[in-house]
Amino acid sequence: MAAGQLSQEELDEIYAFAVDLGRKAGKLLMERVDQRISGSEGHSQKFEEKDNSVDIVTQTDEGKQGSHNTIYPNAHGIIQTSSNLFPAPSRPNTQITSSSDSFLQHFRANNARFLGEETYAKGESRDYLIDEQPTWCIDPLDGTVNYTHLFPMFCVSIGFIVNHRPVIGVIYQPFQDQLFSACSGRGAWLNETRQLPLIRNPSIPPMPPNAPAQCIFSCEWGKDRRDIPDGNLSRKIESFVNLASELGSRGGKGGMVHGVRSLGSATLDLAYTAMGSFDIWWEGGCWEWDVAAGVAILLEAGGLVTTANPPENIETDAIEDVRLGSRLPAGPSDTETGRESQERTVREVWRRVRQLEYSRPGA
Amino acid sequence: MAAGQLSQEELDEIYAFAVDLGRKAGKLLMERVDQRISGSEGHSQKFEEKDNSVDIVTQTDEGKQGSHNTIYPNAHGIIQTSSNLFPAPSRPNTQITSSSDSFLQHFRANNARFLGEETYAKGESRDYLIDEQPTWCIDPLDGTVNYTHLFPMFCVSIGFIVNHRPVIGVIYQPFQDQLFSACSGRGAWLNETRQLPLIRNPSIPPMPPNAPAQCIFSCEWGKDRRDIPDGNLSRKIESFVNLASELGSRGGKGGMVHGVRSLGSATLDLAYTAMGSFDIWWEGGCWEWDVAAGVAILLEAGGLVTTANPPENIETDAIEDVRLGSRLPAGPSDTETGRESQERTVREVWRRVRQLEYSRPGA
Repeated sequence: MAAGQLSQEELDEIYAFAVDLGRKAGKLLMERVDQRISGSEGHSQKFEEKDNSVDIVTQTDEGKQGSHNTIYPNAHGIIQTSSNLFPAPSRPNTQITSSSDSFLQHFRANNARFLGEETYAKGESRDYLIDEQPTWCIDPLDGTVNYTHLFPMFCVSIGFIVNHRPVIGVIYQPFQDQLFSACSGRGAWLNETRQLPLIRNPSIPPMPPNAPAQCIFSCEWGKDRRDIPDGNLSRKIESFVNLASELGSRGGKGGMVHGVRSLGSATLDLAYTAMGSFDIWWEGGCWEWDVAAGVAILLEAGGLVTTANPPENIETDAIEDVRLGSRLPAGPSDTETGRESQERTVREVWRRVRQLEYSRPGA
Repeated sequence: MAAGQLSQEELDEIYAFAVDLGRKAGKLLMERVDQRISGSEGHSQKFEEKDNSVDIVTQTDEGKQGSHNTIYPNAHGIIQTSSNLFPAPSRPNTQITSSSDSFLQHFRANNARFLGEETYAKGESRDYLIDEQPTWCIDPLDGTVNYTHLFPMFCVSIGFIVNHRPVIGVIYQPFQDQLFSACSGRGAWLNETRQLPLIRNPSIPPMPPNAPAQCIFSCEWGKDRRDIPDGNLSRKIESFVNLASELGSRGGKGGMVHGVRSLGSATLDLAYTAMGSFDIWWEGGCWEWDVAAGVAILLEAGGLVTTANPPENIETDAIEDVRLGSRLPAGPSDTETGRESQERTVREVWRRVRQLEYSRPGA
């Protein structure tokens, strides 16, 4: 069994389905973009604000998960088709219809659930939303702010999780027709032709000896912009500045990373880390659908994903493979294994970052 | 005359030449990328450090401007061909050869000069390097740090400047086969098919009424990472945080921008601003070759480029069209012209940013 109760063959089938779904949904996003560019919508596209002016839901976003305000019959159709895969009676907006397709029947028998931003009701639960069951974790439009401004870093993000571990990831950027994908046991790929990380021949380069120096550090400013002393924004900035400042500065915390990059999409940050473009990604406060696909791709590319918040003892506490966090693929050097060089880098990041305090609604 | 002493017809010819040159040079960059990916170079590619570990010269960079360590005979050949266009006797590394091609002859007669990173000798001059003469301003590999890490935000950047004004710009991103280009009088374009800014039908949207809120703010951390109290890094961070923080915070300076993005290439920041993806770009300490192509494209897309450092009186001093700075295309609203909404936004940015102090070497 490649991933819990699913065989490699079953995973491969689900993977092919997910790649196809990602491309189809991305095509619909681009149709909407073309409508905006051609002016057939004028300036009238509505962007409904959620918590604050950074957190928006577009009509496309809602339409694609089957809400009442469906703009795209086709997108709705795609999600209806795929909702055959997601029998989740407890999730109010998810529809279950019958299908004669034997694959879908087969797959439904595995009792996969569906989790997405629009099916999660605000304040619904304090708990983490993933358990050991096979679960689709989908954001039909990730990087919504980028989408509204037509910055090409938006995508369809499809993750499939088994036993808490994302085992299939599909990220499709329709503006540049760029596909990141991975399936447990099959490697991680760019456009289904270039294996990730890109540089792996004759071997994946190890982390730099003086990491985080020489690393590209990826981070996001996020939507929590409250100007609170010692709040998350302030802690983030302090952490960013520690990583960016010249070596030896800031009481030894200066990390002199090679570059600081912010794209506005967590799942794309993870995809570019899998590619090897970024070496370190550090973030807090993500939802499962923000990262599931990216984590699947990064893990399959050999990355390490662990907790962003430093543990009590940075030097000696175990570096556990957990749900969210950061890190890149690395091969061995003459003196250490790839994993050792990854763990060394994680500890160097922990030395420089502040504890972030994000909580689930109601928690 | 469309641009000083050059006719539109002459500009069009130069433009076509620049687009062709950009694509050819980009193809060579991708050949080098493919060599790295296929492992035919192993891990041995040398990146020579310049001022500090962020400022690197790759062999490709040097080779393409004709230094002794030429790696690419073809790239060298392209630059030798184009160096026919750049009779600049005062610049030591520039070669002048004869050519029977009538266009080149014609163009040389216009006495265009050539300015690039590798032809500028460190500490050579305290003066600005552009005057009223037609000047090519080229960075054959912009976004060098991105290139070394294979983050696709690297490009060939070709600007042509007449009377201090960049009138032709070509930015080619070979990894994604994405071309930004503009010629005075011909509009700005993505891939020669989509006019910039992308959203312009039925009209270009005005700047948001509460800008910088709802704007995407583009910025770079840069290479000056010295941890000096009130140094440029510290002033940048303070400015970034002002623009990001919620409205009303930070003594009224909180700008609540929609997003903060950092790509690692000034000329691509400008290209994405021309596209409408970004609304504001703010930076200091750029060289001419870092921005010439991007400024040409942004100006032709209707953008405003002015000084990054706030003037004495932010509210009343004139907003002059100058060499470097920031700004996006904007159309009219019911109450103001596009230019008025641009100028309003510039003043709101100036209210939130610190004065940066970059100087030329020797100055």
